[in-house]
Amino acid sequence: MLLKKVCLNHQLCDILIKGNTISQIEKSINVPDEIIWDCTGKAIFPSFANTHTHASMMFLRGIGEDQELFTWLNTSIWPREAKLKPEHIYPLSRFAILEMIKTGTTFFCDMYGDADETVRAVNDMGIRSMIPYVGMDFFDENETERRLNQADLFLSGPSPSGRIIKGTSAHAIYTCSERLIRGLFEKAQNHQTYFHIHLSETEKEVHDCLNKYGCRPVELLHKWGVLGPKTILAHGVHFNEDELHILADTGSIIAHCPTSNLKLGSGSMNLQKYLESNIQLTLGTDSVSSNNSLSMITEMKVAALSAKQRVGSVLAGRVSDILKIATRNGFQAFGINTGRIEVGALADFVLVDLNNPLLLPNEQIDSHLIYAADSSCITDVICDGKPVMQNKTVTNETQIIDEFKRVVWELNRL
Amino acid sequence: MLLKKVCLNHQLCDILIKGNTISQIEKSINVPDEIIWDCTGKAIFPSFANTHTHASMMFLRGIGEDQELFTWLNTSIWPREAKLKPEHIYPLSRFAILEMIKTGTTFFCDMYGDADETVRAVNDMGIRSMIPYVGMDFFDENETERRLNQADLFLSGPSPSGRIIKGTSAHAIYTCSERLIRGLFEKAQNHQTYFHIHLSETEKEVHDCLNKYGCRPVELLHKWGVLGPKTILAHGVHFNEDELHILADTGSIIAHCPTSNLKLGSGSMNLQKYLESNIQLTLGTDSVSSNNSLSMITEMKVAALSAKQRVGSVLAGRVSDILKIATRNGFQAFGINTGRIEVGALADFVLVDLNNPLLLPNEQIDSHLIYAADSSCITDVICDGKPVMQNKTVTNETQIIDEFKRVVWELNRL
Repeated sequence: MLLKKVCLNHQLCDILIKGNTISQIEKSINVPDEIIWDCTGKAIFPSFANTHTHASMMFLRGIGEDQELFTWLNTSIWPREAKLKPEHIYPLSRFAILEMIKTGTTFFCDMYGDADETVRAVNDMGIRSMIPYVGMDFFDENETERRLNQADLFLSGPSPSGRIIKGTSAHAIYTCSERLIRGLFEKAQNHQTYFHIHLSETEKEVHDCLNKYGCRPVELLHKWGVLGPKTILAHGVHFNEDELHILADTGSIIAHCPTSNLKLGSGSMNLQKYLESNIQLTLGTDSVSSNNSLSMITEMKVAALSAKQRVGSVLAGRVSDILKIATRNGFQAFGINTGRIEVGALADFVLVDLNNPLLLPNEQIDSHLIYAADSSCITDVICDGKPVMQNKTVTNETQIIDEFKRVVWELNRL
Repeated sequence: MLLKKVCLNHQLCDILIKGNTISQIEKSINVPDEIIWDCTGKAIFPSFANTHTHASMMFLRGIGEDQELFTWLNTSIWPREAKLKPEHIYPLSRFAILEMIKTGTTFFCDMYGDADETVRAVNDMGIRSMIPYVGMDFFDENETERRLNQADLFLSGPSPSGRIIKGTSAHAIYTCSERLIRGLFEKAQNHQTYFHIHLSETEKEVHDCLNKYGCRPVELLHKWGVLGPKTILAHGVHFNEDELHILADTGSIIAHCPTSNLKLGSGSMNLQKYLESNIQLTLGTDSVSSNNSLSMITEMKVAALSAKQRVGSVLAGRVSDILKIATRNGFQAFGINTGRIEVGALADFVLVDLNNPLLLPNEQIDSHLIYAADSSCITDVICDGKPVMQNKTVTNETQIIDEFKRVVWELNRL
């Protein structure tokens, strides 16, 4: 595939994609018999990596507005989730991925039940994902064993695609026993893969951790030996200096979810301080039930503004930092060689319409992507060298929407 | 015009528009010879009132990122604005109004030079506006007189449409003399119209006001007699309790601009406290140079989240409050009988596509409008009973964009 006359960093160029890789970027490239894609009037950007979400929660968009995390979980979310059956997960995940694609995302790190069904959805939709088996035992030992066995089954099964990383996840330190958390981490480690957990989302969690375990959440996980460069901590709102040091030393990954944290009253992370602590910082939307969007574009705007609000300085949440945590950092954290438009990188990218009024004038287009763009600006999305959206159309879009509506209708009747 | 099968508050109904007014809302309406608009699959919402912006600043989108207000004004904005000529204002304003329409806005309160050109643009684009003559004298008495005379000329000329309110505006207390501010307010008062001013945007402004005048900004304007139900104060980030009392007593209007305030490091307004103080609170985007968007949808999301962040509570920035400040309150402040879908109200509204994936499932659509929607969800915009966007298309869209590009190109060469 040969992109002709595409705008990259304010310069027109041609970009040759061979297989799933960017193989050449030049002022002009001519290759006989190559499929030509005329990109006149379009700019190329790395696609987004959404490092924390729960794809299958799409049926809960906007449920329980203006409630705090624990009220929201207990009264709005968990009772509705109890109705879910495994067969709902595939259509719900596909619908989530449709929204991700339309808003320019080609990778997400998930956390939900019936992970095999999500694997199937990602495989069919053509994007990338880290999909963990998720455990939660509420400190019941029988449940711990059952969960660990299930994790084995999930990890030992084949992955249908190189685009899909299988891993493990424990919900949180307040829903999972030490044995489950260590066990799930070890299983991930044995398979050289990733471990994902919610951590330090609220002050209550930190307080309860201090009461129960006599130390703070990061210290606890460090003691249990489950931190490291393949451990992704979602939220991480309330880390203190000591915890940030441990996270930097162990190379652990933070999935910052500013909208969700503000919407559920969990607190506001100090982005600038975290960046200066040299930890691996990435960006996630969380699910639509606490956001209520999967758009990484909007998430970047909220990340930038809430970072400035947090410390009262315009120097926090700078354009270049925000773009980096939403693209390059996210892919890098998961060992995926993309998040940048360079020769040798995997061909994951979006094309945006330079004539869309929201992006005019084009001079400051990097900041427009954060502050002015929306899904209407994205025309094409490419993942692993293959188009997953062309001219604003995703394959089977109508069928995916209809199927989603059917599931919602069914769940509302249960 | 008869809207058939439109969704209003989760119920299907028919809505009859007679002239510029909503004249009937029933389960089913049949009127012979009326133009029928099939709204199957669409929901109706009030359009937005954007109560503070500078429409002609479109050429400055994204200029001077991550700078504070005064640095940004002095080094990024004012030197570029100095190049503007009166003939640029019409195409720049039209382009701004194009973005407003595409994001569902049918009224804006402006503040910019060459106001006659903006009046012409609003008239041609078919939406509503309060367009003031804007004065700034930098405390030079000759300039004061010149400005006051110009204000007279502007106000005494006819308004080309009932959709357009002419008024006056002084830039700010740190750029305008007492005589100019009082004079411009009085001229507005003599014409029974509105007076607009930036106020209490930064702590520096408050501090300088205390030093120079021995009182806080609201106290100063109160002493000068320029507060009241036709005075719109943009930003108002740093009002204390006493000032809030004065504002409630005088019925003055606040245009809250959360994105701009955070982006320029001006501070974060305490939305919840202001709401509880019973002041007239409305919402504005400010210009694209400090936002960088005119979308009231995104502004609502930022308003809700920053309100929650400001006080650390989910009960701040509730869905119903945010929708109200963005619609009903804004129109009401300017005496425009709309901002709600009711019989007798002016026919200003948007239609949204209920099948757009961003709005699914539809159950919580009020909160989706704030938290999940973007411009891609809005299909039609009606102002004063007439469509200004139909099926996502605004009349002369391509010409408006081309003309804007030509102006930007010209300004970049000067």
